[in-house]
Amino acid sequence: MNTPTFALDPRLEHDTHPVAELPLCEVRLMDDLRFRWLVLVPRRPGAVEVVDLSTDDRAQLWREVDQCATALRRTGPCNKLNLGALGNVVPQLHVHAVARMEGDSAWPGPVWGCGGRMAYAKELLQQRIEALQKALAG
Amino acid sequence: MNTPTFALDPRLEHDTHPVAELPLCEVRLMDDLRFRWLVLVPRRPGAVEVVDLSTDDRAQLWREVDQCATALRRTGPCNKLNLGALGNVVPQLHVHAVARMEGDSAWPGPVWGCGGRMAYAKELLQQRIEALQKALAG
Repeated sequence: MNTPTFALDPRLEHDTHPVAELPLCEVRLMDDLRFRWLVLVPRRPGAVEVVDLSTDDRAQLWREVDQCATALRRTGPCNKLNLGALGNVVPQLHVHAVARMEGDSAWPGPVWGCGGRMAYAKELLQQRIEALQKALAG
Repeated sequence: MNTPTFALDPRLEHDTHPVAELPLCEVRLMDDLRFRWLVLVPRRPGAVEVVDLSTDDRAQLWREVDQCATALRRTGPCNKLNLGALGNVVPQLHVHAVARMEGDSAWPGPVWGCGGRMAYAKELLQQRIEALQKALAG
């Protein structure tokens, strides 16, 4: 039997852009310019719940979430960080890290389930991704 | 100068019932019978963001979140766990762990911002708390 290989869920792939590969997770930017919003996807085939990961992987996941949260705070204004692991629509394990601003399109509600996604134009997308890559590497 | 002491935010206190005291966090049950929903509040005065905690506290927080998630799965049906640290309304650092069911009042959306809270009657409240206490202790 072959070892199962990791493949990003097609919906996550469609909705996000690649930013970085951390030791455990793919880091992707949600294609919604209303929020600075990262999604971390552990490269563990079949993982659905955080508690299904090994103890080591769980610790690594939360370290990488911290790293992404810090990068979000360093690359723009942020009144509040929002972290979430939901997966009600896309079961493949993924964790959201979002920089929230008072008065943003969903404030003070959650970003999840907030319609009206606004896709990035190419230039702003590239700027955001480069700033985040730099902050993640630093 | 006195060391600041921890006090639960009055809104969190009002909306939840005490379940357990873990080494770092107060564990509370959201007073909404539509969802089996725990809230963890680290006893760290002034903490707002997960990344503001010390490295040790962060690791302990996520271990306690795992413990609560496991207790939720052991004490009732659960199609998906939802974890979240938002704090847009109540800034005192707190993490949600919620057992979601397909077709529940907010499915597949998030529980946060979903109106229509239904308070527990005394007997069901007591049953849920006792079951969770047992699962958290085991």
